[in-house]
Amino acid sequence: MGLVVPLEGARDPAESLKPLLDLVSEDMEGINRIILDKAISDVDMIPDLAHHLIVSGGKRLRPMMTIAAAKLVGYRDKAHIRVAAAVEFMHTATLLHDDVVDESDVRRGKKAARMIWGNQASVLVGDFLLGQAFRMLVDVGSLPVLRILSNAAAVIAEGEVMQLAAAKNTATTEDAYLAIIDAKTAALFAGAAESGAAIAQRPAQELEALRSYGKNLGIAFQLVDDALDYSGDALRLGKSVGDDFREGKITLPVILSYRRGSAEERAFWNRTIAEGKIEDGDLEHAIALMKKHKVIEATMERARTYGTIARDALGVFPDSSEREAMREVITFCVNRAH
Amino acid sequence: MGLVVPLEGARDPAESLKPLLDLVSEDMEGINRIILDKAISDVDMIPDLAHHLIVSGGKRLRPMMTIAAAKLVGYRDKAHIRVAAAVEFMHTATLLHDDVVDESDVRRGKKAARMIWGNQASVLVGDFLLGQAFRMLVDVGSLPVLRILSNAAAVIAEGEVMQLAAAKNTATTEDAYLAIIDAKTAALFAGAAESGAAIAQRPAQELEALRSYGKNLGIAFQLVDDALDYSGDALRLGKSVGDDFREGKITLPVILSYRRGSAEERAFWNRTIAEGKIEDGDLEHAIALMKKHKVIEATMERARTYGTIARDALGVFPDSSEREAMREVITFCVNRAH
Repeated sequence: MGLVVPLEGARDPAESLKPLLDLVSEDMEGINRIILDKAISDVDMIPDLAHHLIVSGGKRLRPMMTIAAAKLVGYRDKAHIRVAAAVEFMHTATLLHDDVVDESDVRRGKKAARMIWGNQASVLVGDFLLGQAFRMLVDVGSLPVLRILSNAAAVIAEGEVMQLAAAKNTATTEDAYLAIIDAKTAALFAGAAESGAAIAQRPAQELEALRSYGKNLGIAFQLVDDALDYSGDALRLGKSVGDDFREGKITLPVILSYRRGSAEERAFWNRTIAEGKIEDGDLEHAIALMKKHKVIEATMERARTYGTIARDALGVFPDSSEREAMREVITFCVNRAH
Repeated sequence: MGLVVPLEGARDPAESLKPLLDLVSEDMEGINRIILDKAISDVDMIPDLAHHLIVSGGKRLRPMMTIAAAKLVGYRDKAHIRVAAAVEFMHTATLLHDDVVDESDVRRGKKAARMIWGNQASVLVGDFLLGQAFRMLVDVGSLPVLRILSNAAAVIAEGEVMQLAAAKNTATTEDAYLAIIDAKTAALFAGAAESGAAIAQRPAQELEALRSYGKNLGIAFQLVDDALDYSGDALRLGKSVGDDFREGKITLPVILSYRRGSAEERAFWNRTIAEGKIEDGDLEHAIALMKKHKVIEATMERARTYGTIARDALGVFPDSSEREAMREVITFCVNRAH
């Protein structure tokens, strides 16, 4: 089940991630050590729950942004590793709260933490991880980095509230949707990349370039994520096709299907997404409508556009293997579909 | 209904709050302006929910700690006001998450935010307020203050998780209970008071004295709160007598009743608190057992002891009207019962 997402090239997306992985691999070991160390607490539930989520999985794309950006600007010290670990903690905290808000059962192919430890623990351990992230950043002691990432924390939460307010509203515009994903997803990618240059005390122009890179990569990443929910290889992604549909989540494929659809089709979207009355065969019908209106292609096309903006944002930096790795990862994000 | 809490003196507790209120009143207006300003967002739900809770109520004891401490150490600048507003935001964030975790219906005599906007919005707006708090602190730019309050944020969450892990466990020791309230309540009082001296760049001895004052006042405050839940004037407190009982919350009155009780009485506590099987008349019976074993008096006695420690902690400061106001507020916290 699911549509086939059209790819830009025939290259295996994993190949596009490899240069970045090679670039950051040594520092990522340091991040993993810090994560293990800082997820510790005398309160057993905290490391148990944190390990379930942090230690066991995830691509760690966001901390990689910080490491790669620091390397791109020629940073030679070690503080970027702690900044990157704090970024991953911030991300994990939002995942824990997201799963509570979305009532998700599965995360990264495993039971969501809230299904094992409950919603209450997920809320509180999320709070703990966010507190730890700020502690770690204060230890690093860079006010510019603290500014970037405390802004990100507030904006992410704002984006999540926006998403909640737009929930089940099939009349959400594409602009409103973009504002949501800009806040809830792109803000952390942007902050992660910008921090790598901020910790190196680079000029504003470089911080802004990396911020733009991270932001546009984050938007592309989220657009692809939303397309995959109706089209991906569920098993490989650790999530099920149709999760967003069943949760009544407003994403670009739904927004475009609604805007491009007939009155009858809009009635279908209103019944399923807005009213949550989902019957057998509805997901298949939703996917058929998406195919008819080519909305997955349209979503991917937009993702590629943001990917191109991210690519161009790095133009202010001289050619280097670091820059090439950061550009290659755009291809990974946009093509990780099949 | 409810026991009468024994008071230290016959003085009206409100009288004991007045010197502090006079001391901080001008700065509190500044705090209120900042709170209104920083609770703003383009996302309507955020100011709506934040105003419901922040603007409408609460004694603002914690930000008062910051203001009073800054005045005690002779701070002449204005940054303490922004620090105090951030403290109130942190406190509000924990209230929002607490009410979700405890499934509370009422807060400050009004419907809990989650009963109006839902659990999801309460989690996310709490995250936003915490993010805003850190943003505000970064704007102030004092790394020592950031360190104190990011530590507090992580410790508060740790305390909440400890409380969750101890939930319904009637065998919880008094020590474990003290560790919980030290983290979940006293840490913010301690951080709030210490911050007032930290922003003034005072010597470590003064920071530690104010930290000790805040911590012990916070413990006393929570002990009294827990006693009031079985004894207070519900209407005046904006909460119902017996809330903790109905939620199966382990507080010192329950711990002491259990420890001092007969086998039959322990069976009662296990049925009601541990198993949550509460029948008509159980609250009255619980209160009768507390009367029999004098556990409310015992809880208040401990509160007074912590109050005395807080009082003595200020001994390193010379006599002043500020010090007197901060000592008087201890009397308010311990005697706010009747």
